[in-house]
Amino acid sequence: KARFITRPSRQRNIVKPSDWRDYPYPFIYGQPDTSLFPINEWRECCRESMNVADICSAGVDRFDLDDPVLIEQIQTRLLPRRGVWAKPEQILVTLGAQNALYLVASLLTDSTSIVGMENPGYPDARNIFAVRRSRMIPLEVDDQGLAPGPVLDKCDCIYVTPSHQSPTTVTMPRERRGQLLQHADDADFFLVEDDYESESNYLGEPTPALKSLDENGRVIYVGSLSKTLAPGLRIGYVVASVELISEMRALRRLMFRHTPANNQRTIALFLVRGHLDSLILKQKQVYKERWHLLADALQEHLPDCTRSNSHGGTAFWIRGPDKLDSIALQQSSREHGVLIETGDVYFSESEPPKNYFRLGFSSIASERIQPGIQLLAKQIRYQLGPVNRH
Amino acid sequence: KARFITRPSRQRNIVKPSDWRDYPYPFIYGQPDTSLFPINEWRECCRESMNVADICSAGVDRFDLDDPVLIEQIQTRLLPRRGVWAKPEQILVTLGAQNALYLVASLLTDSTSIVGMENPGYPDARNIFAVRRSRMIPLEVDDQGLAPGPVLDKCDCIYVTPSHQSPTTVTMPRERRGQLLQHADDADFFLVEDDYESESNYLGEPTPALKSLDENGRVIYVGSLSKTLAPGLRIGYVVASVELISEMRALRRLMFRHTPANNQRTIALFLVRGHLDSLILKQKQVYKERWHLLADALQEHLPDCTRSNSHGGTAFWIRGPDKLDSIALQQSSREHGVLIETGDVYFSESEPPKNYFRLGFSSIASERIQPGIQLLAKQIRYQLGPVNRH
Repeated sequence: KARFITRPSRQRNIVKPSDWRDYPYPFIYGQPDTSLFPINEWRECCRESMNVADICSAGVDRFDLDDPVLIEQIQTRLLPRRGVWAKPEQILVTLGAQNALYLVASLLTDSTSIVGMENPGYPDARNIFAVRRSRMIPLEVDDQGLAPGPVLDKCDCIYVTPSHQSPTTVTMPRERRGQLLQHADDADFFLVEDDYESESNYLGEPTPALKSLDENGRVIYVGSLSKTLAPGLRIGYVVASVELISEMRALRRLMFRHTPANNQRTIALFLVRGHLDSLILKQKQVYKERWHLLADALQEHLPDCTRSNSHGGTAFWIRGPDKLDSIALQQSSREHGVLIETGDVYFSESEPPKNYFRLGFSSIASERIQPGIQLLAKQIRYQLGPVNRH
Repeated sequence: KARFITRPSRQRNIVKPSDWRDYPYPFIYGQPDTSLFPINEWRECCRESMNVADICSAGVDRFDLDDPVLIEQIQTRLLPRRGVWAKPEQILVTLGAQNALYLVASLLTDSTSIVGMENPGYPDARNIFAVRRSRMIPLEVDDQGLAPGPVLDKCDCIYVTPSHQSPTTVTMPRERRGQLLQHADDADFFLVEDDYESESNYLGEPTPALKSLDENGRVIYVGSLSKTLAPGLRIGYVVASVELISEMRALRRLMFRHTPANNQRTIALFLVRGHLDSLILKQKQVYKERWHLLADALQEHLPDCTRSNSHGGTAFWIRGPDKLDSIALQQSSREHGVLIETGDVYFSESEPPKNYFRLGFSSIASERIQPGIQLLAKQIRYQLGPVNRH
């Protein structure tokens, strides 16, 4: 009878309430503000992608190919902003960034591989490599992101988020990026760069991607439209050598052939017309305001908590007082309409610290931020204050 | 540096020219006739799935859940026609049937597994299990589909296409389905039923799915809308135990989270309004006509070729004269505007027979069938006839 080779349902993972929209203070992460979404422009692109010729071509099996217009847009519009130049044969469209990571892990890692993971780091990435049964080494993260050190020598592959480290949101400076690449050359490992939220810098300009400095083909670059356009559409992309993309294409063919053709075409049109650029600008403006509002509210109401040193992203990573139990805090805050994310799941330790949490601000209205943090502060006082302290 | 664990690009696979629409006689398989596609109804469903509330819900990350309306439609509209009853927790939406197969193979098979594969059989399925490094046993196919025999005892898992065996299109009679299930109970293996083209029977009614007879949870059922609605949309589904679906959902979360939410909603509306039912009826009528036309043309022009005993599907599986080289035939026919598929890739042998080929009729206009077969017959005569015989 059927025996499970792997039981992914038993992995530790981020859990978000699916009814998070019903809460007044959703400091939830990873959901773009749908009130900013250019509905009319999107409808227009959908409509145009549905002329008879396109329905035929969109409805038709592409076997293993991507929409050439979308590839061109990624190549000429999205990648250059990150300092990356790639040939069309070096680009593959995936079902979100996570799917790109899954393809890379499936092709390049197995139980004999040693994979370096930022700690704290992105749980889904850790879980993907766990399914491959790779050995994982937790790597230190400091206020410049992934920290250098001799431990990197042991790795075959390192998963890294230089733009805004997940979950701390700190940005890796250009100098450290160069060191990391040099280290990859010296110790012969490769890097998977997850370039999520690359454009959301509110103090200064975005740093060019690690991939832009990559002279020796050490970096597999992963990008996504989930954090800007819509996560539900599941559009990501990966840039790598022609050889690796060719193997990824073949594996994707087995996994699901290609991402749905109608969405590829609609998104391509959306890009061609500059609607994504406008959306990113609008988001940046709104998120920047919220970033400042949240920073101020934290300083005022949570003086005992420290936040990581970031200048972008759509969340703050908070270290609470040592005795804080963020799991209990999450529960009690939820009863008062405030949703936060606990930090424990980002750590690789089996007994992770409990005093970290994350506050996303992409989906919460600006005017809700201050009162939401006030409510949160009250819950922290209930938990740690003299009355409830045992 | 990056080392490949697997090289899927080196697998043998079906290759179709991407410009097949430009040929006058495309006896190509697996592409529904887009001239039958109800464009206005589809547009209407797209439009309605784009009201503001739906854009929000469609654009939003569903984490690991499917659209409840689509699940309900699969449960109450699609599965009952196949004799299958399932709870919503037993259904998962996948990115085409192939993706369902990939998830099943990833969860339940590895290098220690023995997988029985129909021979000839579906190359993509074979390639998926090859990536898992499972040992594969080729299983005989006769004019009733997968043949019983003691060799089945050795298998942990058997991939089977009872509705219309791929590629022969023969249908497994109900009695043999019962025997196969009994065998699965006795020898303790599980079955993956790929129920593609289940509704395309032109002589008599479709046989209920193997899954409908499955009392002991031996069958993992895989269905798809690719052969009816559109392969480019990549919508399939799988029915299995609550436990297995829960693990598949967790693995799908790692692989790509969920299939794009906007498509799930549009297709759900398309089903709710009965448009898929109408489409299937229309297709069945047209394909039935072509099936008879092609059968007649084969009898008239290719008397030396035999076709497998089928009463449905969208292709004929042809055994040519022993000396026929279908690879050469494919090339020479193509030069005359006739596209056929060679049969070699469906066999598991490293030196497969060369005298089989497949003629799809879903994408070729009815009036082109007879002249197309005439041209093909001419090419066969050139190859085998006294003038060109060496």
